[in-house]
Parts: sequence; structure tokens; C-alpha cells
Amino acid sequence: MARFTFYFNPMSRAQIARWALHEVDADYDPVFVGYEDKPADFLAANPMGKLPTIVHHHEGHDHVVSEAAAVCHYLALTHPKKGLLPGEHEAADYFRWLLFAAGPLEQAVTNRAFGWEPTEEQERTVGFGSYARTVDALDGWLQTHDFVCGSRFTMADVYVGSAVDWGLTFGTLVSRPSFTAYVERLRARGGYQAAKAIDMALIAEMQAQAPDGPGQ
Amino acid sequence: MARFTFYFNPMSRAQIARWALHEVDADYDPVFVGYEDKPADFLAANPMGKLPTIVHHHEGHDHVVSEAAAVCHYLALTHPKKGLLPGEHEAADYFRWLLFAAGPLEQAVTNRAFGWEPTEEQERTVGFGSYARTVDALDGWLQTHDFVCGSRFTMADVYVGSAVDWGLTFGTLVSRPSFTAYVERLRARGGYQAAKAIDMALIAEMQAQAPDGPGQ
Repeated sequence: MARFTFYFNPMSRAQIARWALHEVDADYDPVFVGYEDKPADFLAANPMGKLPTIVHHHEGHDHVVSEAAAVCHYLALTHPKKGLLPGEHEAADYFRWLLFAAGPLEQAVTNRAFGWEPTEEQERTVGFGSYARTVDALDGWLQTHDFVCGSRFTMADVYVGSAVDWGLTFGTLVSRPSFTAYVERLRARGGYQAAKAIDMALIAEMQAQAPDGPGQ
Repeated sequence: MARFTFYFNPMSRAQIARWALHEVDADYDPVFVGYEDKPADFLAANPMGKLPTIVHHHEGHDHVVSEAAAVCHYLALTHPKKGLLPGEHEAADYFRWLLFAAGPLEQAVTNRAFGWEPTEEQERTVGFGSYARTVDALDGWLQTHDFVCGSRFTMADVYVGSAVDWGLTFGTLVSRPSFTAYVERLRARGGYQAAKAIDMALIAEMQAQAPDGPGQ
């Protein structure tokens, strides 16, 4: 048995975890999860049935991690020699922006895509304030930092970068020069390319096998 | 100068950070931030103008941390002797539920409070799936775990517990026996009580000074 079980669907946020797995050269068994008939061992691990979910088989324990940002950080933690954890003077930036992307950014982007936007009064209550303020905050950071922690790539970039990459690809995140430059830096990484090659091939395969044929 | 600057308003998510500061006995200077006329040094640290924000004055650097969950974890990291960081076999639970509360739970609860609920089709796309699935997932965990990491309180409980405490207090989170029992355990802590005493006194003071008099 591999050290990690990776429950995934290539057309899901599991793409984020796959990239993280490849950044640390993790030893993992992939288990495909469709929208229907989810495997019982997967639902036992994560009753919400959400992807990605990984299980770390460690000293007789099966440690479950869900939530894409947590999965990324956990993989950095369990592969310390890969150097993707923050140093003492990087931890503030690392956790701040990891949580910013998992909280405000995810919420602002999702809500806007569905037309759920706060009024000026509601902006005081919602954690992301507004889509514009959220996007501007991230843009401000990336205008002056090549990566989340400055000049060096860390695991936080896998999660924050995936949010930017995904948002630009699907048009849910407004394009800014700092965002496109950041994503270009990330797409040059071997771990990104290896992970995406697998997921893109799987998506092509799924589309070819779909009842309506490819591209439908 | 204290080791940490703590930008806060007692009527905000800064209550979460105050509790975390007291759990680790942090050396901090509180700086009040009103809704209007926010201090320039605060906006320089966090252009979004959101609370809580802390600044860690460390070896000549000023490290800024925003996002309540990141603030909690960062305080645990910078006070390792307080024993609120996860051990090797607790890290999966710790980060999983910290990110669950910062992402899906925050989004599900906020969105429901504002009437933004996904259709069955949208459930596949949104990270929290649905309010019901999110609440059931947390309930399932707390039915079988006294704290996020099992039998032991860690910093993750400050953030997850605040979400549950706040949600029950304001009625945005449906009540479940596991939630009320969890919050009871948390409210018994000295750090919780010390932090809340400060914020409740400040709120009472603000209400007494309000133009319309107390309680308006």
C-alpha cells in the first residue's frame, strides 16, 4: 500500500491536491470518485463526500485530510525535506495568504459567480468584505511579491496559485497583470506540469467515453 | 513596545484573536479600530481593513497576519511552549477542521444568513456543498471527539469553537447537542473567560457612550 490514498476526480478541486502531491513527490494511490455511487471507504473518510480527500497511512493510523488548503499544507508538513514549509520569517505570510485564499477569496469568487453579492451594509458582516476589496488585496500583494512568501516558492503557492489559475481560466477572477505573471511563474514548475498532464489526460479520456462523445 | 500589536474592535471577529492571545499569554498592545477613520498604520498592514489583524514585531521585522484562523495558528506557532500546536498524529485533524471552519463552515453559515443557498446543481460546484451537509459533517465529528484533535484542546479549537459559539449565540448555526456540549467545554477555559471579559466590558462601554444611550 502506498503511503497516501488520494481520492480524486480530475474535474474537481482535487487538481490542487494532485499538484501538491507531485511537488513533494508523494507516494500515493489515486482512487477515482464519480459524482454518483461514491465508494464507501471514501464516504467513511469524508462524510461530506467532497474532493480532494487524502488518507495518510502512518504507523498503523489512517489520518484523513480534507479541504484542499489543508491537504496542501499537510503534504508539505509530512515531506519536510522538500523545503516547501515556511521558515520563521515566512510563516506569517504563508498562513495569512493560505487562509485568505481558502476563506475570503474562495467565498468572494464563488458568490460573485452565482450573483450573491453583499450590499454596502452587509460588507461589514461578511468575512470577505466585497469581491473588489478581496481582489485588490491579493493584487496588491502579488504586485510586490513574486510568491506568497516573497522570492521563494512554498506550498502556499500551490493553493493560492491554484485559486488564481482556476479563476483566470474560468473567468471568475478578474484579470490583473500581477495575476497573469504569477500564474506564468507557477506553470513553469515541473510539479505543476506533471500533475496537470495526468488530469488533462484523464479528462480527455472521460470526455471520449461520455455517451455524447468528445467535447460535449 | 509589546511583542504583538493587535488591531481589534470588540464587535468583530477580533474576539476570536483575543481569545487566542489569552490562550498563549501573549504580550500584546491592543489598538482599537472603528468602522470609520481606520488608522493609517492598520490600513498599511491590511489594506482590506478587516479585523482581526496582528503584527508580530520580531528581530527587526514586522510580520502581519490577518484572517482569524491564521492569527490563531500563528500565535500557537510563536508560543510553542503553550502546547497548543498539533502533534504528529494530530496534524491531520487540526488542519482539516481549521480549514473546514475557515472555508465551508464560514461560507455556508454566512450565505444561509443572507439567503444565498445553492441549488442541487450548484452544490456540485460550491466548496461547502450545502449548509445541511456542512453542519452534519461537523456534528458527526463532534459527536465522537471532545475537541478537534480528540481528547486534547489545541489552538484549532479556538477558531472552530468560536465559529460554533458565535453561530449558536446568533442563531446562524442550527443547535445540536454536540455543538452545545463542545461550547460548554470551551467556555470553561480561563483564556476564553479572560478574553471575553475584556470584550464584553468594552462593548458595554461603547453602548453606554453611543448617542442613543445604552442598549440602543
